[in-house]
Amino acid sequence: MKLLRYGPMGQEKPGLVGPDGEIRDLSGLISDISGANLDDQTLDMLRTKDPKNLPLVDGAPRIGACVNNVSKVICIGLNYHDHAAEVGAQPTPEPRIFMKASSAICGPNDNVEIPRGSSQTDWEVELTIVVGKKAKYITEADAIDHIAGYCLANDVSERDFQIRRSGQWVKGKSHDTFCPLGPWLVTRDEVPDPHNLDIWLAVDGVRRQNSNTRNLVHSVPVIVSHLSHFMTLLPGDIILTGTPAGVGMGLKPDPLFLKPGMTMELGIEGLGQQSQITVSA
Amino acid sequence: MKLLRYGPMGQEKPGLVGPDGEIRDLSGLISDISGANLDDQTLDMLRTKDPKNLPLVDGAPRIGACVNNVSKVICIGLNYHDHAAEVGAQPTPEPRIFMKASSAICGPNDNVEIPRGSSQTDWEVELTIVVGKKAKYITEADAIDHIAGYCLANDVSERDFQIRRSGQWVKGKSHDTFCPLGPWLVTRDEVPDPHNLDIWLAVDGVRRQNSNTRNLVHSVPVIVSHLSHFMTLLPGDIILTGTPAGVGMGLKPDPLFLKPGMTMELGIEGLGQQSQITVSA
Repeated sequence: MKLLRYGPMGQEKPGLVGPDGEIRDLSGLISDISGANLDDQTLDMLRTKDPKNLPLVDGAPRIGACVNNVSKVICIGLNYHDHAAEVGAQPTPEPRIFMKASSAICGPNDNVEIPRGSSQTDWEVELTIVVGKKAKYITEADAIDHIAGYCLANDVSERDFQIRRSGQWVKGKSHDTFCPLGPWLVTRDEVPDPHNLDIWLAVDGVRRQNSNTRNLVHSVPVIVSHLSHFMTLLPGDIILTGTPAGVGMGLKPDPLFLKPGMTMELGIEGLGQQSQITVSA
Repeated sequence: MKLLRYGPMGQEKPGLVGPDGEIRDLSGLISDISGANLDDQTLDMLRTKDPKNLPLVDGAPRIGACVNNVSKVICIGLNYHDHAAEVGAQPTPEPRIFMKASSAICGPNDNVEIPRGSSQTDWEVELTIVVGKKAKYITEADAIDHIAGYCLANDVSERDFQIRRSGQWVKGKSHDTFCPLGPWLVTRDEVPDPHNLDIWLAVDGVRRQNSNTRNLVHSVPVIVSHLSHFMTLLPGDIILTGTPAGVGMGLKPDPLFLKPGMTMELGIEGLGQQSQITVSA
């Protein structure tokens, strides 16, 4: 299933994508797409419904973040070999963890704010794991069972804030709209191999990131198991798994950063696309 | 007012401390002590009630974390001159930010888990700010109006995980029970000067930290205003403002770390005390 949230910001309703790409409303079945409804039992219940019998949503409503009430936004740093190389860093022997404020989450096509005083706002397309079941000290073999599904995220980052403003990275990762999420939460049964998905991002029509998740340093099961040894993952928590080469700070001969009025388009094979316009905060 | 949450874990009810130290139930007036109820209007409404007319809570129930549904746990690192010196670091020119997983929050007297594989679990008593009103790009002069009140926290930290496990600090800060919070949220009107409070922590009866919040490097208004330039603070978010000297990793000639079966007691003048026993995870 492709689950989504649609409607004005703060008033989103749960829905799913029907066989013809149309949105079908799920309000009669679940209250929201959030941790409380991402267990296997609820997802199995939704699978039994014929989308054609669910209310059709007219028009083209705004799409919200595909998960609500996210308690943790955990990110893995330097998790593609090519990205680590372009920023002059070594991949770490264990997943490198940092966090993003959950208040940064927004819809996949909402405007992205350039913070006041920013000179180095940058993009990062990332495969994102959505936790379905509480996970503490779980093995890699058990990891997949704790995943509800996957989605697309843009880990927007202000490099000067991230690196040179007395740290840590969270400082450059947490501005409002720095985590466009969606359009869909694609349930794990529809993503049999999360390690073989094309992943790309374009800025003003120019392809800047162009890779495949097979280039991940630490795999999805490794990440989930590893994290669960340092914190308890809760249903609805999201894990951004890192970005491939091609971020603005890594461009040669000169880095490129976002200014108001630019457009980012990004996608992951099977997980949909996003499009954001940058605006002043 | 001294607001608190009492009852079994996950079933806490809101209450306040009455004039004789007794707990009075607030369930008839508010659903919880959480961001939705920390605005000035709600707090003013509660102030109009005579505690003697509120239901008396019998016995000595467990005390839960004094705030529920915390969306962000933000911490300030190296924010006491003496603590920075003991760990061989310089205070930073701006507040140094890191985050803790909100799943680490527990009651003030709950057992604290020593993670599996831990060799360096440490303590940090901290003055904690509870945000009352949404804050984005606010000035230092406006900061206090955005604070609902203050509480006590123990920023329990696994130093090996924090520093040597491929970073960032969040990795050593986020284990379950690593954020005992409370016993009370003391509203800001009862803490006219948060920069003149005795702050202390003892391990197995030996006083290890003993300072005063006047030794903070970055003050409460500076912290709140500064943070609001990097992320939007939401009602119920908490900000741990840093710890004074005397953490285990800084002890001379040898560091001291926590093992199962030890006791931490800590307090801040006017904000109450905590007591935790350490257990194996």
